[in-house]
Amino acid sequence: MKKTVLFFFLLLFAVQGLFAQQKPKYIFFLIGDGMGLNQINLTEVFLAAQEDRNTVFPLVFSTFPYATFATSYSLSHGVTDSAAGGTALAVGKKTKNGVLAMDSTGKVSYKSIAYAAKEAGLKVGITTSVSIDHATPASFYAKQPNRGRYYEIGLDLAASNFDFFAGSGFLSPDKNSEKKAAPSLFPKFKEAGYKLAYGLADYNAVKEKSDKIILMNVKGSESDALKYAIDQEPTDLTLEQITSAAIESLTKNNENGFFLMVEGGKIDWAAHANDATTTIREMLDFNKAVKRAYEFYKQHPDETLIIVTADHETGGIAIGNGGSRLNTKILANQRVSQGELSKRIAALRGTNKTASWEEVKVVLDENLGLFSKIKVGKEDEQLLMDIYQKSFVQHEEETAKSLYAIDDKIASEAVKILNRAGSISWASGNHSAAYIPVFSVGVGADRFSHKMENTDIPKKLAEITGFVIE
Amino acid sequence: MKKTVLFFFLLLFAVQGLFAQQKPKYIFFLIGDGMGLNQINLTEVFLAAQEDRNTVFPLVFSTFPYATFATSYSLSHGVTDSAAGGTALAVGKKTKNGVLAMDSTGKVSYKSIAYAAKEAGLKVGITTSVSIDHATPASFYAKQPNRGRYYEIGLDLAASNFDFFAGSGFLSPDKNSEKKAAPSLFPKFKEAGYKLAYGLADYNAVKEKSDKIILMNVKGSESDALKYAIDQEPTDLTLEQITSAAIESLTKNNENGFFLMVEGGKIDWAAHANDATTTIREMLDFNKAVKRAYEFYKQHPDETLIIVTADHETGGIAIGNGGSRLNTKILANQRVSQGELSKRIAALRGTNKTASWEEVKVVLDENLGLFSKIKVGKEDEQLLMDIYQKSFVQHEEETAKSLYAIDDKIASEAVKILNRAGSISWASGNHSAAYIPVFSVGVGADRFSHKMENTDIPKKLAEITGFVIE
Repeated sequence: MKKTVLFFFLLLFAVQGLFAQQKPKYIFFLIGDGMGLNQINLTEVFLAAQEDRNTVFPLVFSTFPYATFATSYSLSHGVTDSAAGGTALAVGKKTKNGVLAMDSTGKVSYKSIAYAAKEAGLKVGITTSVSIDHATPASFYAKQPNRGRYYEIGLDLAASNFDFFAGSGFLSPDKNSEKKAAPSLFPKFKEAGYKLAYGLADYNAVKEKSDKIILMNVKGSESDALKYAIDQEPTDLTLEQITSAAIESLTKNNENGFFLMVEGGKIDWAAHANDATTTIREMLDFNKAVKRAYEFYKQHPDETLIIVTADHETGGIAIGNGGSRLNTKILANQRVSQGELSKRIAALRGTNKTASWEEVKVVLDENLGLFSKIKVGKEDEQLLMDIYQKSFVQHEEETAKSLYAIDDKIASEAVKILNRAGSISWASGNHSAAYIPVFSVGVGADRFSHKMENTDIPKKLAEITGFVIE
Repeated sequence: MKKTVLFFFLLLFAVQGLFAQQKPKYIFFLIGDGMGLNQINLTEVFLAAQEDRNTVFPLVFSTFPYATFATSYSLSHGVTDSAAGGTALAVGKKTKNGVLAMDSTGKVSYKSIAYAAKEAGLKVGITTSVSIDHATPASFYAKQPNRGRYYEIGLDLAASNFDFFAGSGFLSPDKNSEKKAAPSLFPKFKEAGYKLAYGLADYNAVKEKSDKIILMNVKGSESDALKYAIDQEPTDLTLEQITSAAIESLTKNNENGFFLMVEGGKIDWAAHANDATTTIREMLDFNKAVKRAYEFYKQHPDETLIIVTADHETGGIAIGNGGSRLNTKILANQRVSQGELSKRIAALRGTNKTASWEEVKVVLDENLGLFSKIKVGKEDEQLLMDIYQKSFVQHEEETAKSLYAIDDKIASEAVKILNRAGSISWASGNHSAAYIPVFSVGVGADRFSHKMENTDIPKKLAEITGFVIE
């Protein structure tokens, strides 16, 4: 009988093992800034439409075994900004719009899941396609009462002791939030032990020399963001490359796992400009980064957790604006972002003082397919011509402002026409209160099966991993 | 040692039991017609806003342990209609817009999950807040190449042998699809063994006399739909009452369980009219029906499965139209649907040939809160006055048409103004391609954890239950 009892306990132990919650060693936290459910759906519909298929071609993350959604409102507003949205995802608490990882008074600071991961012995990487000091990445390493305190956010980075940072660069490396000259952040980063890498070649050159790296865009490129995917040249730094570099760097000389945050930051920017094709291209760019994470997961399925989510939806985009037949295929005629198109139109205005409406039409046709490939109604053409008249002839009202861009008015109106023809509607140039998507795969992913608050995401992550964020 | 082996097998058997998939005996399939994720979110935001809370008050189904989403496109269109959408949910196959449970040619018919449940010995109930022969309910019992064949759909009902039907009534009980007089459906229903109940009192009078019932609205009321929740009097038949009656009827003299489909059909209608408050009130009405199902689930948690989903989103609604502060609270000032408001304005026009603009303003104020509670800008008031001038003085362009209503133009414009002030934007008066929500609780709910095709919903249901739909 003794043997039986022993056997029973052994078996019980084995069975218990089946139920015991494993902890993930490698954690990917991928955030599509401004990526609502409709942005995902549109991208899938668009991909299928390119092959004349009335179906969807799934993105990597929409095939994950768990897919749900979460609220996005902040403590102060029904519609969150990226600071409060990022804070909710990073620390598990709602705060006021504009605040980074602090309470609404800006006096109490919160601990992010990234700091908790670091405490638990994991390496930590924070990466983005915009500037490293932007609200979403900053939510994970900075504690500031105002997201605009870029210099002070940089100081928080230097003090973070995290292992890998990447993005386009820094917005205010030598001027503090009082707009006064301040000691450059870059020497401070070096003092804190970071190697600075400008571009991928530079990264490859320094990667063996240091376990702590800040990867930025090549010197001379714009510091505010990587180029839009739709505008990139083959030599430009991409979010996919950043993700690969992060994985490589964080796994080097490291047996303790990592926490890696990757932000697709310009989905939001393109959606603020109500530029559907550029939004789709950013979505596909972000999807490539997720694919890198997923490939890693497939090599370490029993040790990896991937979460793909968003801080909020941008633009209140809808797929379908009246008809039952979708015409998203034609969006592919757009070759450059609205911003790049603006530059081209402004260049024409600058170099050719007497540029005719026909010449402007050629630019719209080359870059958006308007007129030759996509029919423009008389009313719409008149609208464009009126703007041309004002901006080219009278040099008035040349630009249209959105949150991250001041675009040429002809460009923004022409993109609107393309969007309408492509079955797309936008509610505004601001964020909406829509639910955010939450996709997950790997160890602990089953916790993300139901509708939740955005703050539940890091809380659940803490439960799964044992990280202490409270 | 023999004992040990026996013990081992006993234990193994017990452990296996833990994993074995139980089958649900009671299945609720609740469909919010036109209920996109934003309609749900808006209702939750609205409820909290009524108490000046910047948060969400969850609906019954948004607390379910599984919440995900699915595609909605049909075989023929990027944007589905309710026939192809209902068919996808009912039979697990995509078909052409307009077709009910048949292939695109209208030659091959498909078997719905309701027929499969009936075959498996369960009782079957099909209920809705619109007419019983409308596309969504009809998808479950009819097989017709065109959703407009209301008379023939009625014949399919008579032949279905299902146990309980409920809704407002029938759209064409004595005229066939060729618009020719035909023998009334009602005697045919009786011949097929159904008791006809007109209203709840009538249902209570006949319920003990028959196990097969068709519950309709009281005679003399409109047959096309129950009244909008926002317009209902306490004596009007509600979807909640229908759901309770269905549960009562299907569990009477029945040990074999049931499959009950409940459609909140007028969420869609209100959204087609771009009438946000009426949409919200319909959502809350549908939620009450879900609550009845959930109360049943709580009494039979080990035997019940509830699925709450939608056939498509209607209107491309967005919450947030520019500002970060939401103003959904003011939507509660709307006291009646746009349709009912239209009647009141038309009545004023009919009885008072010289009704002044001030008199019309009083009607808008009483019913929408415009002017006294909600400020109307000069431009908006001018817009309304121009319509007044045309429709009241010149008697031109009095109405605005949407899919299910021809409303007064002043009413629809006034509702638009209220919606805009209430932070709501609509993309169109048609459906959109947005994902549909899928919430589930109970036996087998864990199968609904990831993004899927709408057709996967009945397929998974068939897997869980063993029903044969192929």
